[in-house]
Amino acid sequence: MPVVDIHTHIYPPTYVELLRSRTTVPYVRTFPDAPDSSRLIILPGEDDPSTPSTSRGRPIGPEYYDIAQKIAFMDTHKIDTSVISLANPWLDFLPGEKAGEAARKINDDVDGLCAKYPGRLYAFGTLPLSAPVEEVVQEIERLASLKHMRGVIMGTSGLGNGLDDKALDPIYAALEKNETLIFLHPHYGLPVSVYGPRANEYGHVLPLALGFPLETTIAVSRMLLSGVWDRFTKLKVLLAHSGGTLPFLAGRLESCIQHDGHLKELGKTEGRRDVWDILKTNIYLDAVIYSDVGLKAAMNASGADRLMFGTDHPFFPPLEKDQKEWHSVNANYSAISTAFKDDKVAAEGVLGDNAIRILKLDL
Amino acid sequence: MPVVDIHTHIYPPTYVELLRSRTTVPYVRTFPDAPDSSRLIILPGEDDPSTPSTSRGRPIGPEYYDIAQKIAFMDTHKIDTSVISLANPWLDFLPGEKAGEAARKINDDVDGLCAKYPGRLYAFGTLPLSAPVEEVVQEIERLASLKHMRGVIMGTSGLGNGLDDKALDPIYAALEKNETLIFLHPHYGLPVSVYGPRANEYGHVLPLALGFPLETTIAVSRMLLSGVWDRFTKLKVLLAHSGGTLPFLAGRLESCIQHDGHLKELGKTEGRRDVWDILKTNIYLDAVIYSDVGLKAAMNASGADRLMFGTDHPFFPPLEKDQKEWHSVNANYSAISTAFKDDKVAAEGVLGDNAIRILKLDL
Repeated sequence: MPVVDIHTHIYPPTYVELLRSRTTVPYVRTFPDAPDSSRLIILPGEDDPSTPSTSRGRPIGPEYYDIAQKIAFMDTHKIDTSVISLANPWLDFLPGEKAGEAARKINDDVDGLCAKYPGRLYAFGTLPLSAPVEEVVQEIERLASLKHMRGVIMGTSGLGNGLDDKALDPIYAALEKNETLIFLHPHYGLPVSVYGPRANEYGHVLPLALGFPLETTIAVSRMLLSGVWDRFTKLKVLLAHSGGTLPFLAGRLESCIQHDGHLKELGKTEGRRDVWDILKTNIYLDAVIYSDVGLKAAMNASGADRLMFGTDHPFFPPLEKDQKEWHSVNANYSAISTAFKDDKVAAEGVLGDNAIRILKLDL
Repeated sequence: MPVVDIHTHIYPPTYVELLRSRTTVPYVRTFPDAPDSSRLIILPGEDDPSTPSTSRGRPIGPEYYDIAQKIAFMDTHKIDTSVISLANPWLDFLPGEKAGEAARKINDDVDGLCAKYPGRLYAFGTLPLSAPVEEVVQEIERLASLKHMRGVIMGTSGLGNGLDDKALDPIYAALEKNETLIFLHPHYGLPVSVYGPRANEYGHVLPLALGFPLETTIAVSRMLLSGVWDRFTKLKVLLAHSGGTLPFLAGRLESCIQHDGHLKELGKTEGRRDVWDILKTNIYLDAVIYSDVGLKAAMNASGADRLMFGTDHPFFPPLEKDQKEWHSVNANYSAISTAFKDDKVAAEGVLGDNAIRILKLDL
């Protein structure tokens, strides 16, 4: 029974170089007198000047950029194959004229890393979303010719105005035409003010545990409300973190749409595809939800054959330095074995078979 | 088999008078040349001057303040008993010196309304949270002596600084001592900027479907992280809308807490009660989630014996004027019958028996 991890990130060396050359978020901060204590600062708000610079962001070590460490992690956790993706914030921050070349270079680098470990690595590519739309479309076409690419990873900002932006239509059309799946992943979170006056006492918990999932949920709801899936009925999107909160809130979302007088007046509710239809036809969910309660809801929303195991490596490492097995990974393994304890086929599907089928992995 | 609705709101006449006397949110806007078209404007951001004043907020008719209409609604939907609560934003906006008297008057009025319909109405009281803490505590004590009161409804702002505010401790202590349940309900939502540039094209959908549940989830997570339930181990909280998103995100929340180096350094993770313990011991959930997918997750998180049916009346009425039965109510009925189709006792629990037991209703 093969295990496939479809949510696992890498910052390839060219990308780390780029971050090291910067001094504002996102960047890697280095300390001349303590060369081993570089920190990766990627989230908006993570660079608060009132926080000591040595505790902003997170330490960045080789687990972020060294592919050998990814393979070692996979071996420790009995993962046969990983579909790696550039971690956030991807290339969102680059000026348009630099994004195209950076994307090509990074995609080629990542495809090259995969080639070194046949059968063990595939990847989601990165799009130069700040470049002219034609250049984005070209990269989608080019990715389809790279041997290990199985989709693209994308944040929630699109071309800067969200995923309900009509200007994305040529990109959605190219993705649909090439049967290229989007792995939709949060990055921007919510304004820190929503977490209240004592939010900094709670570490990264509130933005990571709640802000990230809601960001994903808002983004996918806007796609839905703007009719993206009515126009691109075959567009496939894999949602990070089991859909953010979409499986749980789908009923409320659908009910709010049906009860909104303003939407009805605008003629936006007639003939639309409903939330459940899209969840079961266009959306896939990873199984990165750390509990069987959440995982069962994801399964009930989309179907067990649309869920795929993930780890979110290299994020959420154990706090204990010498811990080899990662508690975060085991929490997701354990959620699968609990949720599917009476259905071995479904469990094997979530662990690997679904990914092999959906992403057409040659295993 | 009795049906009890524990999530159903009323704006008693004294409260409507108060809103009519105001000209900023929250208020009732009247139009001298169209006396039947008053509008209730309660949400921050709902009073956008670029929106025509006749379409801001929502029409307010007698279903908001006339208790006879509540009873008629209950009859139509086969609801035996309702536990009514003042709707948002309660008394949060009142200057401190006025809040105490307003709370006493409204609580007496609501208790009086219940007395008119023996066995059919109970209520959650309202606290004067802007008044001095001692006055809030007095009202908690006084509410315990009113015949129909079965808890208090509370928003997420507390004394203005959220529910993790240490200044709330005397209030939590009084609630715990009197075994008074808090019905925690959202109101403030999220800053409109999070919904993106085209949010106004989507009516109220994004703030209501997503913002409200996340507001609740953030509030309860802050209570949890600040150790409210470690200090007040018997404090009972009923969460609106099946917990916002807590049942789905509880695994991720617990995992983020366990993996947060900053929290660990602060010594905030040692000896704390975990999220699941609190979900199954201190938290109750309503069944206002409009799908069996969400409802099952709520059940798996807290237990079927902690879920209680609700309607959110008078909100989410049918858009068709002559529709007698409310689709929103039927969606919640239908979620219960689907989720508990093989467990009649659990279904009856959610529909009424749990509320009778938990709220000690004399039925």
